[in-house]
Amino acid sequence: MGAHIVKTYQEELDQLSAEVVLMGGLAEAQVADAVEAVARRDVGLAQSVVQRDHKLDELEKDVERKCIRLIALRQPMADDLRKTVAAMKLATSLERTGDLAKNIAKRAMVIAEAEPMTPLTRSIERMGKLVSSRLRDVLDAYKAGKLDLAQNVWASDTEVDEHYNSLFRELLTYMMGDPRTISACTHLLFMAKNLERIGDHATNMAEHIHYELTGEDYVEDRPKGNTLNSIE
Amino acid sequence: MGAHIVKTYQEELDQLSAEVVLMGGLAEAQVADAVEAVARRDVGLAQSVVQRDHKLDELEKDVERKCIRLIALRQPMADDLRKTVAAMKLATSLERTGDLAKNIAKRAMVIAEAEPMTPLTRSIERMGKLVSSRLRDVLDAYKAGKLDLAQNVWASDTEVDEHYNSLFRELLTYMMGDPRTISACTHLLFMAKNLERIGDHATNMAEHIHYELTGEDYVEDRPKGNTLNSIE
Repeated sequence: MGAHIVKTYQEELDQLSAEVVLMGGLAEAQVADAVEAVARRDVGLAQSVVQRDHKLDELEKDVERKCIRLIALRQPMADDLRKTVAAMKLATSLERTGDLAKNIAKRAMVIAEAEPMTPLTRSIERMGKLVSSRLRDVLDAYKAGKLDLAQNVWASDTEVDEHYNSLFRELLTYMMGDPRTISACTHLLFMAKNLERIGDHATNMAEHIHYELTGEDYVEDRPKGNTLNSIE
Repeated sequence: MGAHIVKTYQEELDQLSAEVVLMGGLAEAQVADAVEAVARRDVGLAQSVVQRDHKLDELEKDVERKCIRLIALRQPMADDLRKTVAAMKLATSLERTGDLAKNIAKRAMVIAEAEPMTPLTRSIERMGKLVSSRLRDVLDAYKAGKLDLAQNVWASDTEVDEHYNSLFRELLTYMMGDPRTISACTHLLFMAKNLERIGDHATNMAEHIHYELTGEDYVEDRPKGNTLNSIE
């Protein structure tokens, strides 16, 4: 902490964003594995998702500590300050993404005990793939520092919501048709909600990258429809 | 930004925590009003909760901006740095609490159109009162800088989870008994989940206050049971 500052500011910033990119890779894998555990009824895979979550928690704390130290000791201005704050915010979103993946994995263990509901878990899988691709795109935008990539993620926010709304209706229909499935279906309902929230984090991250690169907040409202079920 | 620093650090910190306390009062009122809108089927009250939410968003941005500026310009160490970081984190939790209250209010508008489900909305009301009291307690701990008050909130985390679990079972039973209520009940299910998450934010805030006052993270795991439905 109080030791000599041997690295340049640029080196410290690069290290910080490398750590965020590492977190991004882990979070992406957690989401993909959690969804695969649902689709394949794979309890072992679900367990490993749960066990690995602490890694994201630790990295988030580490990024936060480094950012605050950097702000306090180096007093960055303009661009550099924005980069530091963006790293801190992305780390928070990625840690939460990991929490949501962990929760999906826990629910995967429970529904693996119930009767298979293949059409529904396939829908979860499809939504999971969509959300994973948004995560990947936003992380690519961050790595490349490309504003247009971040804007694409931001502008396509409604896709996940549409998926969520249709899955929500599918679940309601299934439950009404066979009330014995209600308990298992509520797990799928919360999984779908978690995926929707992960998609929301991808949109938030696109906003943070936009701020990092331009210094400006998005002034427009999100493209997402103001439908109820798509709102966190 | 670049102007003379006329205030003392202490004055700036005091102003910051006054702003967080203001946010706390608003967030508390939003939760209480959202829950009352559910209980009374009061669409007008629900609308006013939705309309007031932006105030919390703006205050959070303002607190964050002030904190980062303070860290960069004043390079606070130890105690003061912790106070600044805690203010920033509390503001984030309170802004999210507001989002969750807004979502409850939106769902209140929808279920006001459906048949009354008085036993269920009473349960939501009870859970809402419990969660509101936790919010109030944690804000009192912050205002008074009292570690024991924060610890009490932290240690009673399981209460909300127990409430949530029992409400969850009540909802499942209701849906199975009358599948026509499934659609309305999913709104109540998400309301209950939102209240549980607000309770979780109260616990997080207790942890931030603990860190602010002691400089240490909680080393123990949260007291909350590792039951599935109580996990975000």
